[in-house]
Amino acid sequence: MLTKEELPDCPVATAVNLIGNKWKPLIIRNLLQGAQRYKYLEYGIKGISSKVLTENLKQLENAGLVKREVFSDEIPIRVEYSLTELGEKMRPVINALADWGTAYKKEVCKN
Amino acid sequence: MLTKEELPDCPVATAVNLIGNKWKPLIIRNLLQGAQRYKYLEYGIKGISSKVLTENLKQLENAGLVKREVFSDEIPIRVEYSLTELGEKMRPVINALADWGTAYKKEVCKN
Repeated sequence: MLTKEELPDCPVATAVNLIGNKWKPLIIRNLLQGAQRYKYLEYGIKGISSKVLTENLKQLENAGLVKREVFSDEIPIRVEYSLTELGEKMRPVINALADWGTAYKKEVCKN
Repeated sequence: MLTKEELPDCPVATAVNLIGNKWKPLIIRNLLQGAQRYKYLEYGIKGISSKVLTENLKQLENAGLVKREVFSDEIPIRVEYSLTELGEKMRPVINALADWGTAYKKEVCKN
């Protein structure tokens, strides 16, 4: 989790600082459906490479939005990713993005 | 404006494709206050370089979210940027980001 001093004053800039790239909103979109194993997440995000997924998951974990759980008593060991409470609170953001994307696609189809 | 074929199927991915970087949500945040001249926009977005602002404005213009108006009858010529109707529809996204950023900052301050 970042310290207070590392965050911008503006709350929009704070949010964008933590999730403002091409992949993080898509990772959150998928994890809003529930905990997922790495392979399943990778499969569900079109075009993401393994390296980039790992990097982004680690950043989301450091930011306190995603948690990684290792079930070491299972064979093979199961590793699952899920949203923390703060990550779950991203739902209205993802929903707003979905609504906007839907409106945009409708507009594009008209032309 | 992108063609229908260039957009991902998922509306969240569509939105992220068009505004998913570090700067575009901040440009939209500022233009939601009304039309702005280039210099004023640049001044209002902490840390952005002139090159990056120009690039991002051009991309937002191509995507149909921002319009650029030139008032050539004025001396010096005035150039203003503002949101299109589709850009204005980003307001709920920016509001949701602001709400989340506020909640995040509150959480970080507790620790």
